[in-house]
Amino acid sequence: MKNIIIASTSTIHGSGYLDYILDELTVFFKDVKEILFLPYARPSGISHDEYTKTVHAAFSKINKNVKGIHTYENPIEAIKKAKAIFIGGGNTFVLTNQLHKNNLINTLQAVVKNGIPYLGTSAGSNICGLTIKTTNDMPIVYPPSFNALAFVPFNINPHYLDPNKSSKHMGETRETRIKEFHNFNNQPVIGLREGSWLHVKDDSIILKGNLTARIFEYNKIPYEISSGTELNHLK
Amino acid sequence: MKNIIIASTSTIHGSGYLDYILDELTVFFKDVKEILFLPYARPSGISHDEYTKTVHAAFSKINKNVKGIHTYENPIEAIKKAKAIFIGGGNTFVLTNQLHKNNLINTLQAVVKNGIPYLGTSAGSNICGLTIKTTNDMPIVYPPSFNALAFVPFNINPHYLDPNKSSKHMGETRETRIKEFHNFNNQPVIGLREGSWLHVKDDSIILKGNLTARIFEYNKIPYEISSGTELNHLK
Repeated sequence: MKNIIIASTSTIHGSGYLDYILDELTVFFKDVKEILFLPYARPSGISHDEYTKTVHAAFSKINKNVKGIHTYENPIEAIKKAKAIFIGGGNTFVLTNQLHKNNLINTLQAVVKNGIPYLGTSAGSNICGLTIKTTNDMPIVYPPSFNALAFVPFNINPHYLDPNKSSKHMGETRETRIKEFHNFNNQPVIGLREGSWLHVKDDSIILKGNLTARIFEYNKIPYEISSGTELNHLK
Repeated sequence: MKNIIIASTSTIHGSGYLDYILDELTVFFKDVKEILFLPYARPSGISHDEYTKTVHAAFSKINKNVKGIHTYENPIEAIKKAKAIFIGGGNTFVLTNQLHKNNLINTLQAVVKNGIPYLGTSAGSNICGLTIKTTNDMPIVYPPSFNALAFVPFNINPHYLDPNKSSKHMGETRETRIKEFHNFNNQPVIGLREGSWLHVKDDSIILKGNLTARIFEYNKIPYEISSGTELNHLK
């Protein structure tokens, strides 16, 4: 019964918030009028209210109402009653910390398993994987665990970035980082480039958008998959 | 009695491992013949043995012997007996995890306080700050704490990278990440560009190398400091 969009980013260069994926979202959210938004990742540290305003403005273009979970007294009850859920980007550690602190992991897993449509972008996509151990974010808070929502049986690396061969910077490339991840973990990782997303529908997981994605499996050479590829055997 | 070098990187573009700083290290390590090396950060997942070989080769150019801590039965005793210590780069989470697991934090703090010269590069510099919450690394393991060695009363951001205005990538700039850090933490952060290092000598902390560094203080506009600046009031 799962119905999930796991998007690399909310915004692609040169266009507005969620613009690139609004057509897809019109279909995805066609049966719902209101979306429960979790603004916990607080990009650039903005407040829950400010963040919810931005999201509200974007969804009003497709006639959806947006309510921030912080406006409810009981966030667990808010999730149980939601008809659709969106978790946006920002800092994955801040987001994960808040989800654990408010005891929301189990409830989110339960409602999404029951078919409530879930949209994640960036940090909100990271937490759809098994753990947040392939986030690109700075660990500005210490969450009680790196375990995530496990909507898919692998890890997500959003905003996947190819090595820049002309760079003189000696920091690790994204590929090197994921290689290091596989020295300590054995689940696959999908590097989702900006503009790509996964659509999870029941047992099917399909890559969408115009770009290829990069798959990193334990002890295998990384490889590219094209848009439309079914990933339900990846684990 | 502290005597510490906190270097942004081990290697600058186009030159060999530690080459750019070897002259400085000749002076820094002038009274010691042997350096205890902690290869725990395992860059690209290389083994402790392999990593120690690389470091040994670099230090043999200035006639220093290098021994890996993993070759000792008791790492705490190894640190207590060391005449000089080097912790190299790699993954900060892996390094921090191993330091906590082997119960080395207190012993490292004690010997460095007593004047044993300590060199850190990259991950080995991150852990010289108050916490590892300003590392750039991927959180591939979950350490028992983000607390670090606190050799200086602020945080380090090594491999500091200026925003690339021509980039179309929507991931956060380093400055945005540190701004987000300051929504949850109030200690200063120093962004050390590759080729820069801090020399801590007793109560003095001086920026060295050819470049400026960027200082991020809580609730202040970030600013540049030039090489030679004394940072002993930064906290």
